[in-house]
Amino acid sequence: MKKKGLIISFEGIDGCGKTTQANLFFEYLKESGLDILLLNEPGGTYAGEKIRDILLDSRNSICPFSELFLYLASRLQLVEEMIRPAVEKGTTIILDRYVDSTTAYQGYGRKLPIKFIESIHRTFIGSLMPNITFLIDAPAENLLPIIEKKKRDRIEEESIEFQKRVRKGYLAIARKNRTRVHIIKRKTQEQTHKEIVKEWGKFLNGLKDSAGFSLKSTKKR
Amino acid sequence: MKKKGLIISFEGIDGCGKTTQANLFFEYLKESGLDILLLNEPGGTYAGEKIRDILLDSRNSICPFSELFLYLASRLQLVEEMIRPAVEKGTTIILDRYVDSTTAYQGYGRKLPIKFIESIHRTFIGSLMPNITFLIDAPAENLLPIIEKKKRDRIEEESIEFQKRVRKGYLAIARKNRTRVHIIKRKTQEQTHKEIVKEWGKFLNGLKDSAGFSLKSTKKR
Repeated sequence: MKKKGLIISFEGIDGCGKTTQANLFFEYLKESGLDILLLNEPGGTYAGEKIRDILLDSRNSICPFSELFLYLASRLQLVEEMIRPAVEKGTTIILDRYVDSTTAYQGYGRKLPIKFIESIHRTFIGSLMPNITFLIDAPAENLLPIIEKKKRDRIEEESIEFQKRVRKGYLAIARKNRTRVHIIKRKTQEQTHKEIVKEWGKFLNGLKDSAGFSLKSTKKR
Repeated sequence: MKKKGLIISFEGIDGCGKTTQANLFFEYLKESGLDILLLNEPGGTYAGEKIRDILLDSRNSICPFSELFLYLASRLQLVEEMIRPAVEKGTTIILDRYVDSTTAYQGYGRKLPIKFIESIHRTFIGSLMPNITFLIDAPAENLLPIIEKKKRDRIEEESIEFQKRVRKGYLAIARKNRTRVHIIKRKTQEQTHKEIVKEWGKFLNGLKDSAGFSLKSTKKR
């Protein structure tokens, strides 16, 4: 039976610290000698970076439908160019944002049809859905000062009401996907990281019995 | 009852002369004093033109899924920014490529799920589907010399087998939508234009009895 790599995604509203946590977790797994790849959305490919520029440029007027399809275009390019080939050779992948971002931001945030977005993911992502997702959770109003400190992109310029809807969406996604999505309450960087490592350990124990996945070490090659 | 403008689309494989015919028909309707707008896909908006650049640049590697979503992103921006507001105030719209291009090129040409593309159009385009479509038809091999003469974009660089599948797709779409899609056999520029004007006349006669559409004249304003 062909062994395949795992897909780990980090999710959460703007300012929750998911990029920091994805990086910390990447370093943690790398140190254990795992064959691993860290990717972030939107972007990550030549065409994807150009799509990212359109999406995040505050000067662009983009309707919610068009925004949805641009995110999907960037994702599918990343899937076909990077994720699928890596997973097939057994590489573990960490994603800073992935499918749940679209359901949360465009579905719950922009109020586009959620069932339709889910069916697009089933049709086009299929077996490359994440195996485990860490959702870094905190109330939107607590994160506002963090977003306000940095130069904001088009999405981060959205209202607090929008961010609240997105958070509600993430929590709804977590309820619907209890075995996949692990809610991690945002604490200090270190505490949050420790919590993620703990949940990862539990996940690995559960995984031992299920065949078909590899945690390929770079050291063995 | 609110009067709304008509949507007329021109379709066909690369080199069939549909842009020329769309322009001739635009001039023809404009001379009759009709309030009319000519749009072309992909592009037509600020964000859409940037998407067009990604799609047509031969240096870009774009997977079929990503290509599908980029075309949809460009279209939905055009729909929300230009088509919907114009149609609502009664303007007639001529489109050089629209929904059928996606079904023909990405569905039949790239072999992506056709039913899914149709359901995306039903969900996101809805009532803004074309009222009448002129499909300029000719065998793909006859048009090759025309395409070869000009500087080709990423799509036009495709194989003759691809163009043949797209043509087959267009004819299948026409069979499925007999009242909407009018097949116009490609002849000389002038003969083709005359044929289109003739079909348009028949369409208008049929339309007289159906309320809700306007052919608003610019001269009355």
